[in-house]
Amino acid sequence: LTPAFEKHKITPAFKLWFEADGKYVFGEGVCDLLEKVEEEGSLSDAVRVIEMSYRYAWGLIKEVEKHLEEPVVRTEKGGKYGGKTELTNTGRWLVANYRRLRNIMVDACKLE
Amino acid sequence: LTPAFEKHKITPAFKLWFEADGKYVFGEGVCDLLEKVEEEGSLSDAVRVIEMSYRYAWGLIKEVEKHLEEPVVRTEKGGKYGGKTELTNTGRWLVANYRRLRNIMVDACKLE
Repeated sequence: LTPAFEKHKITPAFKLWFEADGKYVFGEGVCDLLEKVEEEGSLSDAVRVIEMSYRYAWGLIKEVEKHLEEPVVRTEKGGKYGGKTELTNTGRWLVANYRRLRNIMVDACKLE
Repeated sequence: LTPAFEKHKITPAFKLWFEADGKYVFGEGVCDLLEKVEEEGSLSDAVRVIEMSYRYAWGLIKEVEKHLEEPVVRTEKGGKYGGKTELTNTGRWLVANYRRLRNIMVDACKLE
């Protein structure tokens, strides 16, 4: 099957998200944030790197936790914006699986 | 990594579409329609099977063709709603590749 497509370049695009009981609960924005939290070991460092406001980031995290009814991060207090922040098992599961699926999809979308 | 998720069942969900020069051009609805046209060999039979109005179906097809500036179906006239309708190479390429990517994504979304 050879495409004609002389005039336009076709590219696949997708959106991926997780649902809990049929409702949106986790997507790319909060995944990128949690990934960075995991890397930096701190929410305040993570938001600085991805240039997101601390308040907005905290809201994204709280929304996921509200829907799941369990924490995705664990914070040790210390200083104004807390000391260390690490992901819970649930948080790590969400990031690892979202990233895994996204990578499969990105690879699939590289049309020959 | 074991997820805690005691209270909620997590399921991945996605949307897949094709863009031409960065703009939406082809998605699930028109893919299902064209797949059925290919099977039935006729647009009027296809719309009857998937319970879509002929006018709406034709609009979906025309929209894709307008954006791509080439036909995705080829119709032999005959009778009120035309005789046979078959996909062009471009139409077949779109259906085959959309279906292939969607299948990869559906399989990937079956979380262990």
